[in-house]
Amino acid sequence: MPQSLSGGSLLLAWQLKNRHVLIVGAGDVASGRIESVLVADASIILIAPHEGVHPLTQKFIDSYPDRITYHDRLFDGISDLQNIDMVLTAIDDVQKSREICNLCRELKIPVNVADIPDSCDFYFGSQIRSGPLQVLISTNGQSPKLANIIRKKIETCIPEHAGEAIEKVGELRSKLRERAPGVGGEVGKRRMRWMVDICNSWEMEELALLDHEMMLRLLDDGWEKNKVPKPEEFGVKPTHTSLSPPPPFLPSALGFFAGVVATAAVLLLRTPVRR
Amino acid sequence: MPQSLSGGSLLLAWQLKNRHVLIVGAGDVASGRIESVLVADASIILIAPHEGVHPLTQKFIDSYPDRITYHDRLFDGISDLQNIDMVLTAIDDVQKSREICNLCRELKIPVNVADIPDSCDFYFGSQIRSGPLQVLISTNGQSPKLANIIRKKIETCIPEHAGEAIEKVGELRSKLRERAPGVGGEVGKRRMRWMVDICNSWEMEELALLDHEMMLRLLDDGWEKNKVPKPEEFGVKPTHTSLSPPPPFLPSALGFFAGVVATAAVLLLRTPVRR
Repeated sequence: MPQSLSGGSLLLAWQLKNRHVLIVGAGDVASGRIESVLVADASIILIAPHEGVHPLTQKFIDSYPDRITYHDRLFDGISDLQNIDMVLTAIDDVQKSREICNLCRELKIPVNVADIPDSCDFYFGSQIRSGPLQVLISTNGQSPKLANIIRKKIETCIPEHAGEAIEKVGELRSKLRERAPGVGGEVGKRRMRWMVDICNSWEMEELALLDHEMMLRLLDDGWEKNKVPKPEEFGVKPTHTSLSPPPPFLPSALGFFAGVVATAAVLLLRTPVRR
Repeated sequence: MPQSLSGGSLLLAWQLKNRHVLIVGAGDVASGRIESVLVADASIILIAPHEGVHPLTQKFIDSYPDRITYHDRLFDGISDLQNIDMVLTAIDDVQKSREICNLCRELKIPVNVADIPDSCDFYFGSQIRSGPLQVLISTNGQSPKLANIIRKKIETCIPEHAGEAIEKVGELRSKLRERAPGVGGEVGKRRMRWMVDICNSWEMEELALLDHEMMLRLLDDGWEKNKVPKPEEFGVKPTHTSLSPPPPFLPSALGFFAGVVATAAVLLLRTPVRR
């Protein structure tokens, strides 16, 4: 059992499809919030006087007129919170921020007030997105800058085709669920085991190459026969773009060969020694 | 502006300090939930008949008697939801799960029902924790197994001392905030810039070595004089435990040298050629 089970947050992937998110403020920070919330398929209600609208926020307003309802005014009290599922504020007025937070807490609406940790039900962090893959890096408010630095390091080690692989595996899973339906129970367990076996024996790059035909063959020749076909059986040959260094014997062997040639040349071509 | 702003979740670090989380079920999945929720400093109310208690869940019940209140019975309806801030269910009874979910939605309590996506306000994902650093890997429900594989890859590329570095930077930040207090405004901006500069010019390994004295010196000689001292000025010399391969010329040079010696030995020790 791990030593210290405390001092952290509960990291979550919050679902916002068909939900209404109120964003108060339209500056730099708000524009970042808008982007994150758009990714999660929410409807946005944006309240901020137009003189505070950041160019990027304006771009979002212009590009997504059916997903962002913009009100050119200040927050107007409890009436602005009707049918709202989440509230994000990013304004300079600390007192107004706290007031909005208190209203949200009364109405049990999850709220984040930028820069005021104790008025937040949740924090944001540094994020990565590649198709269906999302990664959150949180330092629990200790250092946003280090979160950023760590994000960049993590970005370099996510397999290149991870996003596509996840999409394809998601497709394969739902095809499998159609073929062998049922929640839980024996079939659920067998489904999970087979999917795990496939993910373990195929590389991310190989999974990314799966197409509709191959998925059907995988189900026919694999699932139905209780087998885990290998990528080779499907003619899947990814072009390996490995970044690993050459094996260590290669430079040494070349060096050795060069040494032999050089020394032989020096010794054999010199004037013969006569004893 | 990114191409596709949709199809994802809003990744969050949810705060549960002094909050009450109800967990219904005590099996394998529930034990994982208990661990995640303990990390976030919540009080847990656990409801499940004792015959369904997984050994790991039992360990948690025994180890954290002041943080987990265990009830050996089935979920009993709306009365079990009083003063509850979040509900997580992990039971096999699908109908009961949906019933709990509906009650939560009426009461506006965030809820996650294991294995029933449309009864979830949020999903979990694969997680990494190292001190104050937490990382969430979500495939948006497409492939938990690939999330796991990606987690393992990410683990290998998080800098070794990231957790300690974050702790130390958090300490330095709060010392700085004591010395130069105020929310927002000019001093807030200067504080943020200086902290960013420090994080950019010190390696993670060097930040991890900061102690109380060094932090005070950093503030005196750095912040007060509007400078960003270098780690060398503090005698910080991390023992580099780099895993990078040796420079390529080293094996080649050694090989060349071996080649010279071998060839020279063969040529010079053979019977002299007389012409």
